[in-house]
Amino acid sequence: MTQVKFSDNFWAERLETNREVTLPIEYKLLKKTGRLGAFNPKAATVHEYWDSDVAKWLEAAAYSLAVSPDKLLQRRVDAVVSSYVNAQLPDGYLNSYYQRIGIDKRWSNLHSMHELYCAGHLMEAAAARAVYSGEDDFLQALCRYADHIAAVFGTARGQKRGYPGHPEIELALIRLYKLTGEQRYLDLAAYFVDERGQLPYYFNAEAKARGDRLPGACAYMQAHLPMRKQKSAEGHAVRACYLYAAMVDVAVERDDKELLAVCRDLWRNITTRRMYITGGVGSSQVGERFTVDYDLPNEDAYAETCAAIALVFFAQRMLNADLDSSYADTMERALYNGVAAGVSRDGTKFFYANRLAVYPELIEKVGGGYHNYPASRQKWFDCSCCPPNIARLYASLGAYVASSSAKTVALHLYAAGRVSAHLECGTAKLAIEGDYPWDGTVSITVTPPPAGEKFTIALRLPGWCRNPAATFHAAGSAGTAYTVLDLSIKTSVKLADTTVRVIKGYLHITRCWQAGDKIELNLPMEPVRLAAHPSVRQNAGQVALQRGPLVYCLEECDNGKDLAAISLPANAELHSVKSAALGGYIMIKATAKRKSATAWSNTLYAPADDQAKLITKPITMQAIPYCLWDNRKPGEMRVWINETERTL
Amino acid sequence: MTQVKFSDNFWAERLETNREVTLPIEYKLLKKTGRLGAFNPKAATVHEYWDSDVAKWLEAAAYSLAVSPDKLLQRRVDAVVSSYVNAQLPDGYLNSYYQRIGIDKRWSNLHSMHELYCAGHLMEAAAARAVYSGEDDFLQALCRYADHIAAVFGTARGQKRGYPGHPEIELALIRLYKLTGEQRYLDLAAYFVDERGQLPYYFNAEAKARGDRLPGACAYMQAHLPMRKQKSAEGHAVRACYLYAAMVDVAVERDDKELLAVCRDLWRNITTRRMYITGGVGSSQVGERFTVDYDLPNEDAYAETCAAIALVFFAQRMLNADLDSSYADTMERALYNGVAAGVSRDGTKFFYANRLAVYPELIEKVGGGYHNYPASRQKWFDCSCCPPNIARLYASLGAYVASSSAKTVALHLYAAGRVSAHLECGTAKLAIEGDYPWDGTVSITVTPPPAGEKFTIALRLPGWCRNPAATFHAAGSAGTAYTVLDLSIKTSVKLADTTVRVIKGYLHITRCWQAGDKIELNLPMEPVRLAAHPSVRQNAGQVALQRGPLVYCLEECDNGKDLAAISLPANAELHSVKSAALGGYIMIKATAKRKSATAWSNTLYAPADDQAKLITKPITMQAIPYCLWDNRKPGEMRVWINETERTL
Repeated sequence: MTQVKFSDNFWAERLETNREVTLPIEYKLLKKTGRLGAFNPKAATVHEYWDSDVAKWLEAAAYSLAVSPDKLLQRRVDAVVSSYVNAQLPDGYLNSYYQRIGIDKRWSNLHSMHELYCAGHLMEAAAARAVYSGEDDFLQALCRYADHIAAVFGTARGQKRGYPGHPEIELALIRLYKLTGEQRYLDLAAYFVDERGQLPYYFNAEAKARGDRLPGACAYMQAHLPMRKQKSAEGHAVRACYLYAAMVDVAVERDDKELLAVCRDLWRNITTRRMYITGGVGSSQVGERFTVDYDLPNEDAYAETCAAIALVFFAQRMLNADLDSSYADTMERALYNGVAAGVSRDGTKFFYANRLAVYPELIEKVGGGYHNYPASRQKWFDCSCCPPNIARLYASLGAYVASSSAKTVALHLYAAGRVSAHLECGTAKLAIEGDYPWDGTVSITVTPPPAGEKFTIALRLPGWCRNPAATFHAAGSAGTAYTVLDLSIKTSVKLADTTVRVIKGYLHITRCWQAGDKIELNLPMEPVRLAAHPSVRQNAGQVALQRGPLVYCLEECDNGKDLAAISLPANAELHSVKSAALGGYIMIKATAKRKSATAWSNTLYAPADDQAKLITKPITMQAIPYCLWDNRKPGEMRVWINETERTL
Repeated sequence: MTQVKFSDNFWAERLETNREVTLPIEYKLLKKTGRLGAFNPKAATVHEYWDSDVAKWLEAAAYSLAVSPDKLLQRRVDAVVSSYVNAQLPDGYLNSYYQRIGIDKRWSNLHSMHELYCAGHLMEAAAARAVYSGEDDFLQALCRYADHIAAVFGTARGQKRGYPGHPEIELALIRLYKLTGEQRYLDLAAYFVDERGQLPYYFNAEAKARGDRLPGACAYMQAHLPMRKQKSAEGHAVRACYLYAAMVDVAVERDDKELLAVCRDLWRNITTRRMYITGGVGSSQVGERFTVDYDLPNEDAYAETCAAIALVFFAQRMLNADLDSSYADTMERALYNGVAAGVSRDGTKFFYANRLAVYPELIEKVGGGYHNYPASRQKWFDCSCCPPNIARLYASLGAYVASSSAKTVALHLYAAGRVSAHLECGTAKLAIEGDYPWDGTVSITVTPPPAGEKFTIALRLPGWCRNPAATFHAAGSAGTAYTVLDLSIKTSVKLADTTVRVIKGYLHITRCWQAGDKIELNLPMEPVRLAAHPSVRQNAGQVALQRGPLVYCLEECDNGKDLAAISLPANAELHSVKSAALGGYIMIKATAKRKSATAWSNTLYAPADDQAKLITKPITMQAIPYCLWDNRKPGEMRVWINETERTL
């Protein structure tokens, strides 16, 4: 992740804001709300999920410190880490909630109390600190905690056959395994995956032991069936995607083809039936959950920021298992849209739910649904999982740009910057130039390791681009461009010792790279209308605008009230127009039609064939990237735009 | 009300089912659930709203017995009435809840405990019994209760300045006033109207006295402002419309023009901004309430059956105050659609919420929203206000067909049957023939009172009809038809001593009527597409079908799954086709288009300009009257249909 440096016009600014603004703000809020200092017996209260908020911030801070040293932040991190290390019990247990309310109650309610979830986040923070700062105090503590957990849970006599109500520790254990090489952490992750949903249900057994009502089959937490029998994404979306991501890791590490096939089924179910065009998932506020196929309400969309982040994790693992651009396409969709919308440009406010249409007048009067989120971003939440989650994702964003194996470096995203890839033959450096995601021309200059061995650079051909092209400029051969990709002629290789193949949406170029070799990708980036599958009833008769990886939306401050009264003729030209506002972005402009309310003479319903047809007037419609909405004036927003017949 | 006998092909069957099936079923359920016998100190439980359920059933039964004597029903009614009369306290108080849980707590929580609401329903039942059976035992008891209430509440020293949390008693008191001529009942109704929303808020005062949290300004129960300052319909829709209806009565009885103007504002707000095309009101499940202008969600529609009934009451009062067809148009819209959908054809199941689109797969998996109503009608509800409310409305439906003043009988609905109107000059009888609402030809044969004086017959010209016409056939003048209404020539009068005028949407014909005089109305009834006001974002790009007064919908059993994938070209012909099913109805057929899901090659989003356009195929679309839906197989339903461009 530190092998990637951003200098682009999209992420670089966001990541700097994350470091400079968001992390300090979140520290203060963690402190103010009591999350820091939760172990203090005099503190007013404590909540079962607080450790996870602190841990996500610690993880983000560890990444940030690696990229950009900061003494104040370092002191804060060290102090928080010390408070956890010092609080650890002799047997390794470490949880501020149960250490406050009564250690005798620990491990009695995995269903609801987030105990293993918090443990997982602490492990991830400890791993990040160990890797990026070299300090292994926290890691040692968390390995002791992991060992304690491994002793408590498992299939051996006397062990509890439990598993987390909120998955996350599975991801963390794999991380510990990769970092320490200790097989037992992988085994414990695999145990949690395979025990889940087995009969008799553990959540019933522990509820019975507590004397509580039995929760039964918990599809809400993916525990209704053994994981290998699950075919569709069910229940709480964050839990689901964390778990599925960990399942891919387990499958890859153990070469478990059956489990990987389950992951593919779940992936396919999500991305072809249960995902917003923004990469948001979990459409229902009630249960923050996946519902049924093709059910994607816009105004009532939940699409929690954490769930989009979890989908990014899942996508990254699938991509790791199989270099197929469809995974990276979804990862990019979620990052540039569903995730990026989760935080304000100034880094101070956050969405928990990411609606695809907002009608503030209703929300202000009646409330924002089951969880009552207002129309605009908020500074913090009682249950504040999203703000520190977005902070740690941003602080580690480099990890999603590229990946490498022994002989291949693959580029997934095209943000301008520098990538260093450790290959078998040494470190290859790629300098990426261009103005992605605003422009589709990307230039990649190669500095190979000195060894002079062959390796492959694999470049993603984005799914949104209908006719990608690539040319190769060999170092030194001034002015000579070799076409390596042209859809009309497929690939064309005219250079000795260079092989070019398109495999699963990646352009693989293999050669003995020379310093200064350059590839130019041309990814034509025009605004397009997208339609949803006909079974998505909420989007019938509507189109969404996308340009490159960015999904667009209409905002009231550009288009006036009553955005639903605007319709876009099917043949209206879509123009890309630069705006200097909001750090610079490209808007989409079109001549659309607006039904005029004033012409309606105070009736609510009228014959469609006379009155309704007479009252449209042409307007200039302006769309803004969805990730930038709610950074100007509050008001209506709408991603899906009504489409009307061609203007003849 | 007993002056109207139905013999039509719509209501007659429903009213018979109401008498023969619904009333006995409801009696059994009132008994089974403990509502009958609630005064019994040994009964398991009691609820604050139970008296109202019993009272509405008693009221319905009283109407029913007047039309159709039934010894078993009579015995049941007498027994229930006796149980209430016997339970009355010496001071007149009569409420099963407080008489069970502690009489010392009475009148301490008007905000929440439905005490005055229950009193009102008991008064209405007592009034119905007195008028239609001649037994005044119950009326005397309820007048004593009203006198007790008049002593407790008011502006005099020592009185509580309270008013009901749930309006209804206002309507009941006006009824008592009209029946007994006692001015004090009207005065008490007027007091409740005028005290409501005054500062300091009574609901705060009583909460303080109880030591409870202060509820503050209660727009939910229309108590946020004095009624005369209210301009928009706010809060709980049933409460609101009961109250507004009573306000019209108070205004008319006291000739209070200011109050009537307030009622007109509220009426206008509802009918031009906050009413479903079915006449349903109160769009939000949360709070069962009016929300903001033009907010009419379809799948999440609440539109409680009781609220449509309440709107009928409001409409009827407005019509009584001012013979204007716009009031009757809305009354008809609500009766034939929003109300009639509330009960199954067999009279055994009920909707509480009346959605305008239903996607059962989602409801079955995730739940039916805040109040969790399933997709189909239910036999009963814990809070079961709607079933007995629809029973009493049906049993008194005659009251909405016609009305009369000294010299005018006005016909509002055109159900075939007989109407007797008591005019100053005697009883005029009208025999209405035709097949309304399936056909728009209506014949009205007049039998005037013997006196031979002039009077007026006023016939509503329905708002849904673009070119109504009428001809007059004078008794005896065989074969001679006189055009009395033709939009192309306005009205034409060629008969001596007959004046014809169109006033506020009614055709007024004044003459010395002869026995056998006949008017033939011709109300051409073609299927039409209606569009909603452009600010109704939920209906953008969609049309609803209506034929005569009936709103139509698509059902899955006629059109397959994924109703949103169907679109109706703007120029597709709409055909009326008779069906013998469901007691006979007219369906609307059209050649529409359906987007095929199978052609979508497993993607969720695709460019609209290629894939999406290629996959529509023509289908025959069938629509059924909304009031008849959910009487065959369960499945999807949808009122608003996507409209697409003309098929060229």
